[in-house]
Amino acid sequence: MTEGKPIECVAAIAWEAEKPLDVTTVIVAPPKAGEVRIKIVATALCHTDSYTLDGHDPEGLFPCILGHEAAGIVESVGEGVTSVKPGDHVIPCYQAYCSKCPMCKSNKTNLCGAVRKWTGKGVMKADDDVRFTHKESGKKIYHFMGTSTFSEYTVVHEESVAKIDEKAPLEVVCLLGCGVTTGIGAVLNTAKVEKGSTAAVFGLGTIGLAVVDALREAGARRIIGVDTDEGKFPRAKEWGATDLINPKNYEKPIQDVIVEMTDDDGVGGVDYSFECIGNVQVMRAALECCHKGWGQSIVIGVAASGKEISTRPFQLVTGRVWRGTAFGGYKSRVDVPKLVDGYMEGKFRVAEYITHKLKLTEINQAFDLLHAGKALRVVMSTDG
Amino acid sequence: MTEGKPIECVAAIAWEAEKPLDVTTVIVAPPKAGEVRIKIVATALCHTDSYTLDGHDPEGLFPCILGHEAAGIVESVGEGVTSVKPGDHVIPCYQAYCSKCPMCKSNKTNLCGAVRKWTGKGVMKADDDVRFTHKESGKKIYHFMGTSTFSEYTVVHEESVAKIDEKAPLEVVCLLGCGVTTGIGAVLNTAKVEKGSTAAVFGLGTIGLAVVDALREAGARRIIGVDTDEGKFPRAKEWGATDLINPKNYEKPIQDVIVEMTDDDGVGGVDYSFECIGNVQVMRAALECCHKGWGQSIVIGVAASGKEISTRPFQLVTGRVWRGTAFGGYKSRVDVPKLVDGYMEGKFRVAEYITHKLKLTEINQAFDLLHAGKALRVVMSTDG
Ligand SMILES: NC(=O)c1ccc[n+]([C@@H]2O[C@H](COP(=O)([O-])OP(=O)(O)OC[C@H]3O[C@@H](n4cnc5c(N)ncnc54)[C@H](O)[C@@H]3O)[C@@H](O)[C@H]2O)c1
Ligand SMILES: NC(=O)c1ccc[n+]([C@@H]2O[C@H](COP(=O)([O-])OP(=O)(O)OC[C@H]3O[C@@H](n4cnc5c(N)ncnc54)[C@H](O)[C@@H]3O)[C@@H](O)[C@H]2O)c1
Ligand SMILES: [Zn+2]
Ligand SMILES: [Zn+2]
Ligand SMILES: [Zn+2]
Ligand SMILES: [Zn+2]
Repeated sequence: MTEGKPIECVAAIAWEAEKPLDVTTVIVAPPKAGEVRIKIVATALCHTDSYTLDGHDPEGLFPCILGHEAAGIVESVGEGVTSVKPGDHVIPCYQAYCSKCPMCKSNKTNLCGAVRKWTGKGVMKADDDVRFTHKESGKKIYHFMGTSTFSEYTVVHEESVAKIDEKAPLEVVCLLGCGVTTGIGAVLNTAKVEKGSTAAVFGLGTIGLAVVDALREAGARRIIGVDTDEGKFPRAKEWGATDLINPKNYEKPIQDVIVEMTDDDGVGGVDYSFECIGNVQVMRAALECCHKGWGQSIVIGVAASGKEISTRPFQLVTGRVWRGTAFGGYKSRVDVPKLVDGYMEGKFRVAEYITHKLKLTEINQAFDLLHAGKALRVVMSTDG
Repeated sequence: MTEGKPIECVAAIAWEAEKPLDVTTVIVAPPKAGEVRIKIVATALCHTDSYTLDGHDPEGLFPCILGHEAAGIVESVGEGVTSVKPGDHVIPCYQAYCSKCPMCKSNKTNLCGAVRKWTGKGVMKADDDVRFTHKESGKKIYHFMGTSTFSEYTVVHEESVAKIDEKAPLEVVCLLGCGVTTGIGAVLNTAKVEKGSTAAVFGLGTIGLAVVDALREAGARRIIGVDTDEGKFPRAKEWGATDLINPKNYEKPIQDVIVEMTDDDGVGGVDYSFECIGNVQVMRAALECCHKGWGQSIVIGVAASGKEISTRPFQLVTGRVWRGTAFGGYKSRVDVPKLVDGYMEGKFRVAEYITHKLKLTEINQAFDLLHAGKALRVVMSTDG
């Protein structure tokens, strides 16, 4: 029985930006009131982890334990926790859901603010303190995104724990903790793509592919995939892209290319576009390739801090709409369990994004694979 | 009987940018197939006229006859015209409506493209030529926005003629040809403001006031008016603004001021904002004063050519939406007659925007009044 006691386990500490992670032993304190301690079974690596490790996140705090795309089993719960109990299979969600705040009560957003103030500072709400201590040095280690899944055990707020079907394979559905969910939701919740629509998807990594998958599922009649790495094309085609273009092959701006490709009505432009890269120039192209009068562009990619998007206001006055999405607009604790069910029913791809499997102890190899651009999702298991 | 014959009449020619208009005699050719010749009874002056005269419109062609906010009576119609006949009371609409093009068929936009190609070049569709000739020099004069209402008689495409109730006072409802309609539509069609919403309106000229009027009508619970000219405040208050602020009175950016003013939920920001000035810095402030998760900002103002809007993409990723509106999203020939009826039923203000009445021959005084910032709408009559 570990309940009520500190747990010693393996974790990967990011001591500072731009340094490899330190796979070491941490002491994970028991959950306080309103908290849940989770045994992480599988965790994937997402670009937001590497974005923070590279020092691009202005909010990034070090030393910390990164990781936010994972699945596990509840080990113990703190006082007052009622929505999950030890043994429950769960997905930790960096986007919390409290059901009570103005954001949760609105049907227009998923950006619950209940624990944001603390997760943004890398601490827990109960005492403004952390639950991780580095064994060797005794140093306190910050939490990250309220999840910190690059650890065998983690402690999160109850508001961040989605209970899922026990039959779902944790090493697969962990991907629903971020990337795949974000891409699907951008199409279904944020853009609300109608059957017969046309779309352009910029960037064909995990997020872009999940967008393509959801577009196909929503009945889009034309799905134009855009990537500078043509190695991404075969998979995007398999996922449902009808056209694949590499901006490097054109002299003219890619937005003009897309407007011409879609000019079957004398106007041209796509009904929806999605930026799945994090590049502000591409965000502009994504807006400007939209159809006059109704085209909507959804920003998903996270740009480096300080970068700004821009365009001529005429683009908006003539009817284009610029919006963005975080966690695909899904209300995490309510919707993630449903997404898991949807995956079990074969509604969309999840396992197919896993290109590499490693142990958590091999996490620096996972970062190398990500940087080399060859991996979609690297899933790491914590066993052994 | 003038039908079928050229008409000699008074018009104001803009020979070149940044010069006063030349009130002179023009010859107005009879309408060709698909065209309507209108006797203009009243025409107002809108900022877009002065924007073009000041040389800011990259599409602006000289010499031309400006004017696009007017009302009149059909004098004669060309071959094949069926929707109006001589004697009908009409409002010429710079935003055409053909009912047949992809844009007209979509319920998402009002940007009919049927005659845009020609009106953008200052000519008529039937023969790529103009209907105005300067009597003295014999020079051809370009059309403007497909309306050219600064003339006793004008020729427009049938797609640009809205037939209205004969009982409506033309010297009042002429304002429904642009500014007032745009402001009302931005609220009702583009933003679709719900009862109980909060809003910020940047710029309290005619467009901004029409936005305030429609917000009050839509049941907004808080309407924050923003203008650097406090002389605009008393009227805005009368129209329904609940708070009035002058950015010059604050050290911090006006978006921060508004977020603080509306922070009754711990988040802050308005549900909707409207930019009614044409200033790209203000457009940014208007977006950034919106509530996280759902705030929408509507660009109405027309910026000088070459100017760009910008913001951090994080503003969109965290749920703000940036859009724009042209002619308030109204499908002109269908909706303008209904707006006239709405005015007759007292649903919204129209006459109240008229601060000055002049003759068309006094049009340069109207421009002076506009530039001095003291006028809302100057309406000019063509009689005498
Ligand atoms: N908004 C959210 O909630 C949310 C959630 C998860 C991830 N993200 C962000 O989504 C983005 C994509 O994530 P991912 O994991 O799919 O990344 P990824 O690196 O796997 O995919 C990016 C793709 O873009 C391509 N690319 C790079 N530059 C390009 C250019 N100029 N033109 C065309 N293609 C280009 C790359 O070749 C790659 O295939 C990241 O910025 C990530 O931080 C956002
Ligand atoms: N999108 C469309 O379809 C459409 C239609 C008509 C007009 N417009 C545009 O709408 C805009 C407004 O038109 P209008 O006739 O009401 O103009 P206006 O000049 O009467 O009103 C503008 C107001 O903005 C105020 N202002 C100027 N700079 C400011 C600043 N930095 N901060 C706060 N307030 C400031 C002025 O004091 C004035 O009261 C113009 O750009 C016009 O071209 C757009
Ligand atoms: Zn909440
Ligand atoms: Zn992620
Ligand atoms: Zn106007
Ligand atoms: Zn049309």
